[in-house]
Amino acid sequence: MAPAAVVTSSEPVSTTVDKLPLSNGHDAKSQYQELDASKLTYTFTTNPRPVPDEESACAGTETICTDHMITASWDIVTGWSTPELRPYGPLSLMPTASVLHYATECFEGLKAYRGYDGKLRLFRPDCNARRMLLSSTRISLPAFDPRELERLILALMAVDGPRWLPRDRKGSFLYLRPTLIGTQPQLGVQAPRQALLFITASFMPRMDAPPGGMRLHTSPEDMVRAWVGGFGYAKVGANYGPSLLATQEARKRGFGQVLWLYGPEGYCTEAGASNFFVIWRTPASEGGRLQLVTAPLDDKLILDGVTRRSVLQLARERLAEELDVVERRYTIGEVLKASREGRLIESFAAGTAYFVCPVSAIHHRGEDIEIPMIKGEGGQYTSKLKNWMRDIMYGNEQHEWGVVVEEREQ
Amino acid sequence: MAPAAVVTSSEPVSTTVDKLPLSNGHDAKSQYQELDASKLTYTFTTNPRPVPDEESACAGTETICTDHMITASWDIVTGWSTPELRPYGPLSLMPTASVLHYATECFEGLKAYRGYDGKLRLFRPDCNARRMLLSSTRISLPAFDPRELERLILALMAVDGPRWLPRDRKGSFLYLRPTLIGTQPQLGVQAPRQALLFITASFMPRMDAPPGGMRLHTSPEDMVRAWVGGFGYAKVGANYGPSLLATQEARKRGFGQVLWLYGPEGYCTEAGASNFFVIWRTPASEGGRLQLVTAPLDDKLILDGVTRRSVLQLARERLAEELDVVERRYTIGEVLKASREGRLIESFAAGTAYFVCPVSAIHHRGEDIEIPMIKGEGGQYTSKLKNWMRDIMYGNEQHEWGVVVEEREQ
Repeated sequence: MAPAAVVTSSEPVSTTVDKLPLSNGHDAKSQYQELDASKLTYTFTTNPRPVPDEESACAGTETICTDHMITASWDIVTGWSTPELRPYGPLSLMPTASVLHYATECFEGLKAYRGYDGKLRLFRPDCNARRMLLSSTRISLPAFDPRELERLILALMAVDGPRWLPRDRKGSFLYLRPTLIGTQPQLGVQAPRQALLFITASFMPRMDAPPGGMRLHTSPEDMVRAWVGGFGYAKVGANYGPSLLATQEARKRGFGQVLWLYGPEGYCTEAGASNFFVIWRTPASEGGRLQLVTAPLDDKLILDGVTRRSVLQLARERLAEELDVVERRYTIGEVLKASREGRLIESFAAGTAYFVCPVSAIHHRGEDIEIPMIKGEGGQYTSKLKNWMRDIMYGNEQHEWGVVVEEREQ
Repeated sequence: MAPAAVVTSSEPVSTTVDKLPLSNGHDAKSQYQELDASKLTYTFTTNPRPVPDEESACAGTETICTDHMITASWDIVTGWSTPELRPYGPLSLMPTASVLHYATECFEGLKAYRGYDGKLRLFRPDCNARRMLLSSTRISLPAFDPRELERLILALMAVDGPRWLPRDRKGSFLYLRPTLIGTQPQLGVQAPRQALLFITASFMPRMDAPPGGMRLHTSPEDMVRAWVGGFGYAKVGANYGPSLLATQEARKRGFGQVLWLYGPEGYCTEAGASNFFVIWRTPASEGGRLQLVTAPLDDKLILDGVTRRSVLQLARERLAEELDVVERRYTIGEVLKASREGRLIESFAAGTAYFVCPVSAIHHRGEDIEIPMIKGEGGQYTSKLKNWMRDIMYGNEQHEWGVVVEEREQ
């Protein structure tokens, strides 16, 4: 019964997750069950829905999901249930469920790409699975072997990929959302003893090329997204809800996202829920070098984005002769100064939802930074990086980051 | 059909909420409906459950709720639905619901007290209703008139109070949990266009007198609960889930709660999810004055607790000749120093769940602060404040803070 959802990438799925527990520390004799994708059961829908075109699927105020989802429940004593692929539908939660009160929740976002060669690919799903483990343990949800999560993600796309992302939709994608929530129906601030993992696949609009580029408004002085000692590096719900107020305010003023600054120095951290990059030339006195700059991971303020990581790797491998790749704290003041001095070359946001999205303007406390767009698109380095990534995602370039889904026969 | 759920307190329900929108700014002609408790509909359970005794109700890992709950849904276009009192049961949420991903959620906690005079009372429910509005708008959920929320809370207790908190259980309480969640089934980091308010009533264990007092462990240096510019003052889920990891660690070490410190100075903020108080004598060089000290509200790091506020008010009214009431930033270093110099008199945590709970020990980076307990209870001021509060809650003292629920005839 099990479909052949196999990792066919030449890249071995990482077998280590630094400093994170892969299991919950139970011994072999206990009744505790680990998450095990090989046990996945299949209950297919008897009522497959019509597959909408991409535009109409993204026009409404509800996300259109595919026919199926995968779920697995967890209990602190018995461990992980047998994962199930089953018809997509509502979840039943008690009003006292932990997730509804204490934000015991985390998620991942990745896309499945229908390649120009007809194949269906995920992009570095091992990175998402490992980060989900990191997020889960940060928010006191259970541990699991991330390879099992990766296999479940592949299994969902093996079933719903062929019909929902058909071979004639080359260059299109679906959005995958693994989510883990605390379900224990008990009030009181405590780590949940029960949880539910679910994975959905859905349509999502293309957001990587807004007309005129992405326009950013820096965060208000009295609002901070994440802080040292907090959880800005984890993909937990608690990072998102509190950010909406500033985003709404920025949108009212005609901006797309908030550029989140940190501390009295005004360090640049994230653009909306994406990582933020600038390309500038250092002052002549410092050598006039071209640099691709983004915030560092070591203070744990920002998300260790898969797109961010890939952009940095590609830039180091393929642009080393043209620019330096720099991960360091840098301030909005430095960006302003570079702009005034004509040294700010390009800027973009990078993440799964926004992919590589050119930034055309930043408003900061009365000052406007304009960043030139070329023919309505980003500058040459932004475009190069974006095209390289796209080629890997859609199979124009065979690369270990593109993991082919072995699709279930229809 | 509507029961007489009427505020019979002599205290007028506050008609102003500073700087907060009471409605969503729609004009009278729009189809938008405000939350309106007078429209409440009643669907009674046909299967009332046996009411357990308090001890067995609190023994398990699930919260036992009463027979009914109140729900009202909200849509950005049509506004608030007619609120419904209906049988308690599970909620149905789409896997893409905002609350499950982005922590668009907030809640309140208050208790209903069966008085020694047989009456059923809430304690300052207007304060909870107003804070819920503050939390809701902070987390980009809808506004409402807090008086309507207060009326709905009273209505639930009017129906379930007589059977679930019967007149022969004098001195007992039920726990009320109004909750508001974002339900819009759309992925993407945005303010939800749909939401659900629900109010439950349940059993909750008594936590105000743990054997030997509450033992606190200060927060790890690399973990911060809330920060200036954050949302520590709002009762949103995002404040709780991320705190669980440190709490679990503290419990493994034999402590009950975390004393959350802030900044390199180590300012004392909250004890677990409660406000934190110390009573000390200032050094002789500073007059040797007796002070009740707690963290201030102005930097928005801590919750504006109803118990905190009431303790401060009672202390100012009734203990003014004995001690000074001080709201200011103070550090763990000052507490340590007071302890070493024999000037630390008492300490307690204050909140709805823990009521006024004596603190007997604080562990801070290798040092132990011991705070004397008297006959296993808190010191004289802790006990005085607690007893005054209890007398108001349970009707031994007639006070405007005690709001009598006019119970529905059985």
